[in-house]
Amino acid sequence: MYSLATGAVAVCATALITLAVSQDEEAGPVIVQETPAGYRDWRLISVAHEEGNLHSFAAVLGNDVAIKAYRERELPFPDGTIVAALHYHHVSSEENNKVFGREQSFVAGDPSNVQFMIKDSKKYASTGGWGFGHFQDGKPLTDKAKLKACFDCHARIKERDLIFTRYAP
Amino acid sequence: MYSLATGAVAVCATALITLAVSQDEEAGPVIVQETPAGYRDWRLISVAHEEGNLHSFAAVLGNDVAIKAYRERELPFPDGTIVAALHYHHVSSEENNKVFGREQSFVAGDPSNVQFMIKDSKKYASTGGWGFGHFQDGKPLTDKAKLKACFDCHARIKERDLIFTRYAP
Repeated sequence: MYSLATGAVAVCATALITLAVSQDEEAGPVIVQETPAGYRDWRLISVAHEEGNLHSFAAVLGNDVAIKAYRERELPFPDGTIVAALHYHHVSSEENNKVFGREQSFVAGDPSNVQFMIKDSKKYASTGGWGFGHFQDGKPLTDKAKLKACFDCHARIKERDLIFTRYAP
Repeated sequence: MYSLATGAVAVCATALITLAVSQDEEAGPVIVQETPAGYRDWRLISVAHEEGNLHSFAAVLGNDVAIKAYRERELPFPDGTIVAALHYHHVSSEENNKVFGREQSFVAGDPSNVQFMIKDSKKYASTGGWGFGHFQDGKPLTDKAKLKACFDCHARIKERDLIFTRYAP
């Protein structure tokens, strides 16, 4: 399992996204305690793989608003968009390689984290209209500085409305 | 774009699967001319990455029957199961790496092929109950010998009912 520090890097590094965040009217954005409902059933945006110290393998999924926006090439993404990055360890598959007779097959290993970016241009105005969230074992990351680091990295790609992942046809 | 020969290898190598095949009552299984309707909207089973001469990046999706069977750990898969492997080239993302300041990010490049496995224990009894299909640019592979090679490889994992891909939670 990644450390929280590594996890925070992953938020930026995988371009994958941020998390379910709710607004604490007095204290500013805080992290919600639950992942968006039904995200594992969402449709595919694309896949991603990060090397370096991550070795992560991701499926990037989107809710209906996200998928529609991607397919219609709508930028910026409309309010209501949620992008989910399901991260797994990028592992060699011994059982597949036995069949193939060579080392070639990599698969999704244990889950490492799930990250979300939620678009609400008013609620999250201070972070480009996006709320960011990161969950490990279903528990939210609550370190605001680390979540702020997500935004700092995503903010570098304003031309893509802070979203790294492109749609795979 | 992969050659057909390489594509045929991919069918086995990616554990990903086979294609939309229909039955010609007199001549035996023949390849259908169209991909299963709506497969791009199906839910995620897992992701996969093959090295060697493939450099493929896959999203493996399943229809409702497939997803239900995976989640309920039903083996063998019931008739009606369809597994789709959407293959893309596994490419380095220059635009992401610029942001990260290092070579670490791999994304889905151009599509290479889409493969399907369709379960019908009677129709495809001679190939373990699975029909196999492979499409490039929407066009089906029609070389029966190459499609037979799909089965020959998948047949090596009878304990998983010929399906390589495991469900990612």
